[in-house]
Amino acid sequence: MAQSNEDAVMIKRISDEILTNGKAYDLLHQLTKQIGGRLAGSPQFAKAVQWGKTTMEQNGGDKVYLQECMVPHWVRGGKDLASIVSVNQKATNRKLDATALGNSLGNGKPLTANLVLVADFAELERRKDEVKGKIVYYNYAFNPTNVQTFVSYGDAGIYRYAGASRAAKYGAAGVMIRSLTSSTANDPHTGAMKYNDSFPKIPAIAIGPRDADYLWELGKQSALKVSMTTSGHFLPDTIGHNVIAEWTGSEYPDQYITIGGHLDSWDVNEGATDDGAGVVHTIEVMRALKAIGYHPKHSIRFVLFANEENGLRGGTKYAEEAKAKGEKHVFALESDAGGFTPRGFSIAGSKEQLAKLRNWIPLLAPYGTSFIVDEGGGADIGPLNKFFGTPYGELLPDSQRYFDYHHARSDVFENVNKRELLLGAVNMASLIYLVDKYGL
Amino acid sequence: MAQSNEDAVMIKRISDEILTNGKAYDLLHQLTKQIGGRLAGSPQFAKAVQWGKTTMEQNGGDKVYLQECMVPHWVRGGKDLASIVSVNQKATNRKLDATALGNSLGNGKPLTANLVLVADFAELERRKDEVKGKIVYYNYAFNPTNVQTFVSYGDAGIYRYAGASRAAKYGAAGVMIRSLTSSTANDPHTGAMKYNDSFPKIPAIAIGPRDADYLWELGKQSALKVSMTTSGHFLPDTIGHNVIAEWTGSEYPDQYITIGGHLDSWDVNEGATDDGAGVVHTIEVMRALKAIGYHPKHSIRFVLFANEENGLRGGTKYAEEAKAKGEKHVFALESDAGGFTPRGFSIAGSKEQLAKLRNWIPLLAPYGTSFIVDEGGGADIGPLNKFFGTPYGELLPDSQRYFDYHHARSDVFENVNKRELLLGAVNMASLIYLVDKYGL
Repeated sequence: MAQSNEDAVMIKRISDEILTNGKAYDLLHQLTKQIGGRLAGSPQFAKAVQWGKTTMEQNGGDKVYLQECMVPHWVRGGKDLASIVSVNQKATNRKLDATALGNSLGNGKPLTANLVLVADFAELERRKDEVKGKIVYYNYAFNPTNVQTFVSYGDAGIYRYAGASRAAKYGAAGVMIRSLTSSTANDPHTGAMKYNDSFPKIPAIAIGPRDADYLWELGKQSALKVSMTTSGHFLPDTIGHNVIAEWTGSEYPDQYITIGGHLDSWDVNEGATDDGAGVVHTIEVMRALKAIGYHPKHSIRFVLFANEENGLRGGTKYAEEAKAKGEKHVFALESDAGGFTPRGFSIAGSKEQLAKLRNWIPLLAPYGTSFIVDEGGGADIGPLNKFFGTPYGELLPDSQRYFDYHHARSDVFENVNKRELLLGAVNMASLIYLVDKYGL
Repeated sequence: MAQSNEDAVMIKRISDEILTNGKAYDLLHQLTKQIGGRLAGSPQFAKAVQWGKTTMEQNGGDKVYLQECMVPHWVRGGKDLASIVSVNQKATNRKLDATALGNSLGNGKPLTANLVLVADFAELERRKDEVKGKIVYYNYAFNPTNVQTFVSYGDAGIYRYAGASRAAKYGAAGVMIRSLTSSTANDPHTGAMKYNDSFPKIPAIAIGPRDADYLWELGKQSALKVSMTTSGHFLPDTIGHNVIAEWTGSEYPDQYITIGGHLDSWDVNEGATDDGAGVVHTIEVMRALKAIGYHPKHSIRFVLFANEENGLRGGTKYAEEAKAKGEKHVFALESDAGGFTPRGFSIAGSKEQLAKLRNWIPLLAPYGTSFIVDEGGGADIGPLNKFFGTPYGELLPDSQRYFDYHHARSDVFENVNKRELLLGAVNMASLIYLVDKYGL
């Protein structure tokens, strides 16, 4: 009880420091407004690496260094276009707000073809004989009834990721998908796709939600011909970097706790929520623990990962190097679900570890954490868990607004709230403190 | 267990209905964009009453009627101005973004005087001999370390409410206050003040946060002369209305459950968060329960209250009339803390009632409710509690963004999120369902 009270006092100190002197919001402004979108391989990503190194040095990173890794270098290559060019054989020119899917290929020339509209893969299978030479549109929508929006993303995400090759298998010339969001704004949402090498690599584009509604309603009654132009292609792999700040532990210097977010983002926005928030959470946790004079027992690494969005090369490299050096990793925590008000954590670990973590909920509850689910998460630290069995997971901010902005133009600084962002850092710093003090 | 499962199924039905077919967001768009700010006594408020009546009739209000009450009629009367006119006797003209406090009086002419800057009332008391004929500025700031922002509001609110008369007592000619917010935007925040009739009724104005910072820093080092112009005055009391939709209960038709929000707002914004959200929450709960075919045991009144912001005449009238008719009121619930993601409820009741309510938390947790505190709340239903001892309280959405917008220009539709808004209605409808079914 005395101990728990000591922890409550310490966590209140952490919270007061962050809510009073927190720099996360100003740092996010720098990252989003001075650098902006920063896809792996881009000049902006290289600039972000330098910003990350300098910023970590200025905010308590004792030893700051870059960890090199090769990253893919996909470029959008031009302006993405989509339009309806005829309705029941009658020419028209109705533009659709659209964005090519990340990793998709396009030749920069208009692809014009009749449209086959399907609700889902099941309908595609039933109508597979109709799609040859056509463009296929998937209307599969985000399920609004899931309170946890990531569940709807998990459900609908396969259309973005695999929709092109599923249609190419039956001879489709291109695919359009409904954007992965339940937002009513017409902002289209990009994100990674992957081709199945067995089939032609056809272009793939996401349509803004309101235009998707329009297309679907019109297509139910009328024969549509559409046009799409995308220019995505890969340049040779290039050098990228994880940015790492390291503190040496006083009692267990050879045992590591990792906390991080990913520095890359898509190219269509400022990457404020995905994952500027995670980047500045990571730096803020470091800054605040330093500011209150905390000296950790374990070594702590604060990591800004490269290339989460379209390759995961940064997270993979980090785990590979840790394995090569025979390091011991006791815990890893990521922030990659936004800068919204914190609600809990998702951490994969043993039954005993989960019980220990859940015992701490009353200490974290005044700051927003009301649950710890055992689903893990944090793509960049997944490889660490795979190699070492390290308990790992992520901050779970409230998820209602996340997919309004995710991979869309609207993922900008203005859509992040200062206090919500800071509270995320409060909960992360407090959990790191508890894990460092008591082990897991 | 079987019963609880039946309730879980019912609550899931309510949630699915609201998250799929919810109209709250579209209704909020109507209220904010077609009507906008709607202070008691204004033509916009009268328009909002008609909108409320029609909208409730269209969304399941069996019996919809207006309940008349007299309301105060304060008008801003002109453009509010504030500026620094000299620094150390050297003339300048630095404008300050400012808004007159509600209920404050002004004659529309510039009041120009030397400025006395104080941190708080304690400093005012120490320096009371300096303020005669001067303008007093209170720098008392929102405490950022309170995770529950309403605690900081409760703490700082006295400067807005009573600051003018406290300074007038010592002969001050006018007061300026720091806006009640921890936001870094320079948007000034209005809100109700009250004069103490023993002292001169001097003008009072709130300064935007960044300009407040500037004024405070500059005033520490330099003698400042400032000017302020406000034009607030009262017109004669006028007729206002509560809008009430009533359902008759099947088992206890003479026992009432009240759910509501307030229809009036300040004049400087669209009143989206305060309290458009509560208005559309109330209508959405009614619409959804009707849509799923729910027939209540108790009579339920859905109430859009008049004049919460500067008089509470609507809430008072509602309770007075209930008392005059000898009605029995078993529960009252308000939404007046915004359309943000729901986190819990604050309900004042007996120990047994609180225990009963808390037993339902597991049923509500999947939709955001993780606690029920026993502090009551909901200004408009306070009189009901006072007259009848009715257990009463309010929805507690996450409070981090509330005071960014509260009484400021930025309280507009665009700062409300659709899914967060709908989830508030889900939690309210579910709680009403449980109270109606099991009593309290």
